[in-house]
Amino acid sequence: MALIVQKFGGSSVANAEKIQNVCRIISRTYDAGNDVVVVLSAQGDTTDDLIEKAQEINPAASKREMDVLLSTGEQISIALAAMCLEKMGYPAVSLTGWQVGMQTSSDYSAARIRKVEGSRIRKELDKRRIVLVAGFQGINRYGDITTLGRGGSDTTAVALAVALKADLCQIYTDVDGVYTADPRIVPNARKLDEITYDEMLELASLGAQVLHNRSVELAKHYGVELEVLSSFSGNPGTIVKEVVKMEKTYISGVAQDKKIARIAVVGLENVPGVAYKLFSLLAKNKVNVDIILQSIGRGDTKDISFTVNEKDEELCMQVLQENQEALRFHEIYASNDVAKISIVGSGMVNNAGVAASMFEALYKSRINIHMISTSEIKISVLIDKGDSEKAMRAIHDQFFD
Amino acid sequence: MALIVQKFGGSSVANAEKIQNVCRIISRTYDAGNDVVVVLSAQGDTTDDLIEKAQEINPAASKREMDVLLSTGEQISIALAAMCLEKMGYPAVSLTGWQVGMQTSSDYSAARIRKVEGSRIRKELDKRRIVLVAGFQGINRYGDITTLGRGGSDTTAVALAVALKADLCQIYTDVDGVYTADPRIVPNARKLDEITYDEMLELASLGAQVLHNRSVELAKHYGVELEVLSSFSGNPGTIVKEVVKMEKTYISGVAQDKKIARIAVVGLENVPGVAYKLFSLLAKNKVNVDIILQSIGRGDTKDISFTVNEKDEELCMQVLQENQEALRFHEIYASNDVAKISIVGSGMVNNAGVAASMFEALYKSRINIHMISTSEIKISVLIDKGDSEKAMRAIHDQFFD
Repeated sequence: MALIVQKFGGSSVANAEKIQNVCRIISRTYDAGNDVVVVLSAQGDTTDDLIEKAQEINPAASKREMDVLLSTGEQISIALAAMCLEKMGYPAVSLTGWQVGMQTSSDYSAARIRKVEGSRIRKELDKRRIVLVAGFQGINRYGDITTLGRGGSDTTAVALAVALKADLCQIYTDVDGVYTADPRIVPNARKLDEITYDEMLELASLGAQVLHNRSVELAKHYGVELEVLSSFSGNPGTIVKEVVKMEKTYISGVAQDKKIARIAVVGLENVPGVAYKLFSLLAKNKVNVDIILQSIGRGDTKDISFTVNEKDEELCMQVLQENQEALRFHEIYASNDVAKISIVGSGMVNNAGVAASMFEALYKSRINIHMISTSEIKISVLIDKGDSEKAMRAIHDQFFD
Repeated sequence: MALIVQKFGGSSVANAEKIQNVCRIISRTYDAGNDVVVVLSAQGDTTDDLIEKAQEINPAASKREMDVLLSTGEQISIALAAMCLEKMGYPAVSLTGWQVGMQTSSDYSAARIRKVEGSRIRKELDKRRIVLVAGFQGINRYGDITTLGRGGSDTTAVALAVALKADLCQIYTDVDGVYTADPRIVPNARKLDEITYDEMLELASLGAQVLHNRSVELAKHYGVELEVLSSFSGNPGTIVKEVVKMEKTYISGVAQDKKIARIAVVGLENVPGVAYKLFSLLAKNKVNVDIILQSIGRGDTKDISFTVNEKDEELCMQVLQENQEALRFHEIYASNDVAKISIVGSGMVNNAGVAASMFEALYKSRINIHMISTSEIKISVLIDKGDSEKAMRAIHDQFFD
């Protein structure tokens, strides 16, 4: 008997039939003697429909009012799921963000969770009720409705698991778990039984859209054991936790990210402080920079290239152009015809051959590498976007076959 | 400069265009220097759509969960209206039932308002913001979401007007005000400038669906001045208040109610206590009885006829059949082929000719009267349903032409 938090995303509750499927999973967990707290997202297209309604009235609506509007989506899901469980003969109760005391910062549309009050949920669990909680939402200190932004419902689930000292937090998605690569691109990718928080973090930030980083960071910080699994297959998923079993391979996965742009700043003065000025300016303008490559200075000039999320490309170029005089460069170029391919694995730090092995695979496939970036558990390369899938398969075959 | 509460129903906020229209009315009231609190219903079909979603999953869903589900409808409306006002350059803030401290009883789907906390609204008004409040909803003492049932948003508006000591509560509908009869049936019906609470109460309960009785009762109890007016025409409406100007006619309106059934209980024992037993049994089963007619006893039996809302007909017949032995009657009949036509007016109590005049109008139109019921300010007759419109016009012509 344990306390289990289960989270189901929007596609898992998109219609009546899918809600029934979700409720069967919940009821089996409950029947096994567990206390069950369930976090739900808004149904399939509900959020998009609500955004469309808002757009029609005011494309520049305040974030406060957007949050009042959007938070209804999750409320609809929890009520419907509670009704479904009632029909199946299970005691269920739905609770919104404010009802469970999900206290957040005041940043509408991107609020951070400050504290979960939790006593209401405990009271319901003591009555052996299944508790359905609206994900993605909370209230700030003024009693206003907030939403948590991207990855919000995952984060709600982990925050509840922390507050309730849950034994396990299960994140149900439409995939079976965490794979060594995207199975749609690499057909022989295989599912991992276990992965560490850090590996999961690297994979998530590299474009493997299984779990949002915020929720993994929170789980890591409080040591909440996560399981990523499918709401459709019924198979065991991937456990995310601190220490994993020794595995044969050094790397746990290959990931790609195509939504990036490469910016090249050419002809910077070859004096100290240039990089500092450049990147502090970008940080001030909220441009997140990923891989950075600085050329070795040739005489009195040097070049700096870096990658940004493609949505920041325009802003980044604008900021740089406006500051050409202050930064003293000759030219800038941008390209989004690039992709980032990464391998992740806590085993690679002790194995010098991993990077070489990755580059070998790319070389054999005649794929040109533009930039390279490495960390303790990750190696990323920037290549042409058109080579991305070929690179994924080549690298995967190199390590997993 | 006054504090004005304005309520707009579901048809007034059905789409973006209509929300814009509503916001123009609100902004004009605000521009005139007034503090404005607005109560909104759910958009057009939203509530029906949500009910359909629930039906698909669990036709016998608990009322608690239905309230969690349905309360999202009004929340969507207030957010959209706030966005619209923002676009027009007005400071606006939307608040849900729990945010304004709308405390209710625990009767899910039919909760009664206990208290309105109100301090949050006052704080927003002090900042000269237009406050948009979700109608129809509140929270009970456990912090659970409740809805107020029929006429809920009107009642929310009046309750806020009471709590905030508003100078006026305007109920915007799709009609211009209170008419002497339904203009769709009686083309020469005319709009009343003023009407008393009691007259309005009689008219409302008689089927003139302009204002729900609950809201009028509340307004009467606390002396809140109501105005019923159209959100489309821009014309002045009808003021509902305690004392009205002396008017020429004795009656203020003619109303019909076709959603009734007549039950006849035939061959009851002609002994004391029979009516008591009969109606206390029905009351215990929550059957509301309207007009009651008891025949003069003929020897050892008597008959009792009465009317009920047509939705209670089946239940009423079932209760009576199950208790035939205890009540000792011979037979029961039910018919819903009847209509109730009523005239209302506080002037009629001092004018003996009013009833005679009404019966004369029906006689001239060869309409048979089945039952008659009178009160200080009302005379109702039960006639065949098919005669209803003809009777309305005949009576209206008798008094208003």
